[in-house]
Amino acid sequence: MIVEIVSTGTELLLGQITNTNAAYLAQKLNSLGFDVLFQSTVGDNRLRMGQVLRTALDRADIVVTTGGLGPTLGDITKEVTAELLGRKLFLHQPSQERIAAYFAKRNIPMVDSNIRQAMMPEGAIVLDNDRGTAPGVIVEAGKNTVIHLPGPPFEMEGMFEDGVAPYLHTRFGGQGIILSKVLRTIGLGESSLEDEIKDLILGQSNPTIALLARSGEIHVRLTAKADCAAEAEQRIAGIEKTIRERIGSYIFGVNDETIEQAVGQMLARRKLTLALAESCTGGLVSSRITDIPGSSEYLTGSVVCYSNDIKISAAGVPAETLAAHGAVSEQTAVAMANGIRSAFKTVVGIGVTGIAGPGGAVPGKPVGLVYIAIAGPAGTVGHEHTFTGSRTAVKHRTANAVLNHLRHYITAL
Amino acid sequence: MIVEIVSTGTELLLGQITNTNAAYLAQKLNSLGFDVLFQSTVGDNRLRMGQVLRTALDRADIVVTTGGLGPTLGDITKEVTAELLGRKLFLHQPSQERIAAYFAKRNIPMVDSNIRQAMMPEGAIVLDNDRGTAPGVIVEAGKNTVIHLPGPPFEMEGMFEDGVAPYLHTRFGGQGIILSKVLRTIGLGESSLEDEIKDLILGQSNPTIALLARSGEIHVRLTAKADCAAEAEQRIAGIEKTIRERIGSYIFGVNDETIEQAVGQMLARRKLTLALAESCTGGLVSSRITDIPGSSEYLTGSVVCYSNDIKISAAGVPAETLAAHGAVSEQTAVAMANGIRSAFKTVVGIGVTGIAGPGGAVPGKPVGLVYIAIAGPAGTVGHEHTFTGSRTAVKHRTANAVLNHLRHYITAL
Repeated sequence: MIVEIVSTGTELLLGQITNTNAAYLAQKLNSLGFDVLFQSTVGDNRLRMGQVLRTALDRADIVVTTGGLGPTLGDITKEVTAELLGRKLFLHQPSQERIAAYFAKRNIPMVDSNIRQAMMPEGAIVLDNDRGTAPGVIVEAGKNTVIHLPGPPFEMEGMFEDGVAPYLHTRFGGQGIILSKVLRTIGLGESSLEDEIKDLILGQSNPTIALLARSGEIHVRLTAKADCAAEAEQRIAGIEKTIRERIGSYIFGVNDETIEQAVGQMLARRKLTLALAESCTGGLVSSRITDIPGSSEYLTGSVVCYSNDIKISAAGVPAETLAAHGAVSEQTAVAMANGIRSAFKTVVGIGVTGIAGPGGAVPGKPVGLVYIAIAGPAGTVGHEHTFTGSRTAVKHRTANAVLNHLRHYITAL
Repeated sequence: MIVEIVSTGTELLLGQITNTNAAYLAQKLNSLGFDVLFQSTVGDNRLRMGQVLRTALDRADIVVTTGGLGPTLGDITKEVTAELLGRKLFLHQPSQERIAAYFAKRNIPMVDSNIRQAMMPEGAIVLDNDRGTAPGVIVEAGKNTVIHLPGPPFEMEGMFEDGVAPYLHTRFGGQGIILSKVLRTIGLGESSLEDEIKDLILGQSNPTIALLARSGEIHVRLTAKADCAAEAEQRIAGIEKTIRERIGSYIFGVNDETIEQAVGQMLARRKLTLALAESCTGGLVSSRITDIPGSSEYLTGSVVCYSNDIKISAAGVPAETLAAHGAVSEQTAVAMANGIRSAFKTVVGIGVTGIAGPGGAVPGKPVGLVYIAIAGPAGTVGHEHTFTGSRTAVKHRTANAVLNHLRHYITAL
């Protein structure tokens, strides 16, 4: 069954709000096994809404709309559908009573325009709204099913769960299910990663394999269709194993897991303590590590050593190292890692120094040049990177790299 | 001029990401005077993308797409357009060189698939990408103009500002103008703020006044319609003056200005230096301060003192203060502010300690309880707050409060 989601509302066309309803519905409908192949957005205009709904009815079996069920003159979704399908509107008594009760309960006078909300196309299945005044509507018309839901996310989501999902199940039965799993990687570029698994991407149709770049990470998304969850999981497990054999060392987590979560678990499990000396990241790595509940178990503390004086006094960098190699050098990163580890008496120490930009470049040391060092039981290791992008992008990518190097360092312990 | 925004990407149809690009483009295009009347979303499928683009070309003058310009086999937007418009694709030499340079700079091998990104429809205007590898494209074809932009928001937004907005202005001239100005406030709740200016909100239609809650801030958005920018600015200036007379002390900046930018400018202008001792914020305040280029002028450094030992050894908190009042207390915050100011020899020192949650609450000290102290030429001042929300929300709101207290402290100097 092909589904189109039609979002209505001039505020969407003006960009005043982001369309979170479409993402919610797409996710729910896909997980129930329906193929959402199109999404459209149109304003509160009779002619254009008619055009958009006509197109949707032509190319999709099920059309799910949000918005335009309110009491105002701008709320026209039901009228447009009724006209398209040649249905008359009638006053749906039970809805009128529910709306009247809603206002009575809140001691608000009900105005005439609220009656509009109880007008329904002939032959419609009415969906009660337990969270607001606008009922939803399902209209079955030949090969098409049209489902109108209210615009406010809280009302729409509740009505989908309570009314639409059970209806779809009863009417269309199991459509099988679609299950996705995301393997999150850091350390390999998008095209290099694709090269590693291109044959799999081309040779696979169930699960499908897609690559997505997401704030400095590359995600490998596996999406399986099957009759039941167990079968979908099995299909994913098979291809996941092959992918892990090829690029496993770059995968730090799955689905919603962040790199700071993954690293935090490793530190906690092995009872390792950590301190950082951060220069170019300015505290970002520490802040991300402390986003994780329980991080006080392993993060002892950090120093943001922006000035050279603080690098010397608080992070234990020898003045001679700074004088000989400069603040942005592998030697200084190594001294920061060793110095903070010793000053804060932790198992692992990290030093990170670089040029976040946009200023600060010198000959031989461009913006984006970063040195990361990790000191611990396995000795002190330095890494050099050159990142591109804005100041905050360089900071973010540097933080990703710090956390990823730490992951590899702990794994090898 | 009628515009349709076409978002491409199967991840949108699966509901894995929310379509923020469409909202951004809608807002920008409307502010330039173009009517965005339709938005569509389609997956990485040649046939259906062709259908959607065909429909868009029929009903809109300008079609703006996002996504599908990457190096992978799923990136087909340019090919579909070329086929629809009967154009051949050719290798655009300057783009190929830019992409090669991009990889060379980062020391990453360039693979063949990146060449796909340099293939352009005949007669296209190529938009350079300063933030990634995928160039954008403008194709003029009869009554239609097709504009292809990359999917990652950072790249897309930069390319719109640098390339598309100037192009639209040159090609289509002034379309009348809608101008918005946002006054950003911290420190007053949404309903209290509304109470202060309710009569203005109700009495105004041009500019309109809207209140928006945005990650711990309340924004007052003034939107004026006029024939030219000067007239719109004048309309906004009138109402802005009245609003500032009422709630001026809560306004820290306008439009895109962040509180860390505003505070950074104040510190730089007065040549003040700053050090922080951060406990519950874990480095977030320092990281936000160092997001601003040039922040090394005023931020000397910080200590993230997560453990009590580090509060004593690195932030100069007397062990007796911790023993008598606990780590989360005004006395400890004050000692942290004084201690870091003295240790790092700065003009201003800040201490922040609290319970970010979800664990850590004790009787009398709930999750969200935070103490902030500022030490400087005007003495040491402590503040108590109780914030609600998730761990990261408490961290974020605490950071906002720290920066806002600092703003007031400096203003009073």
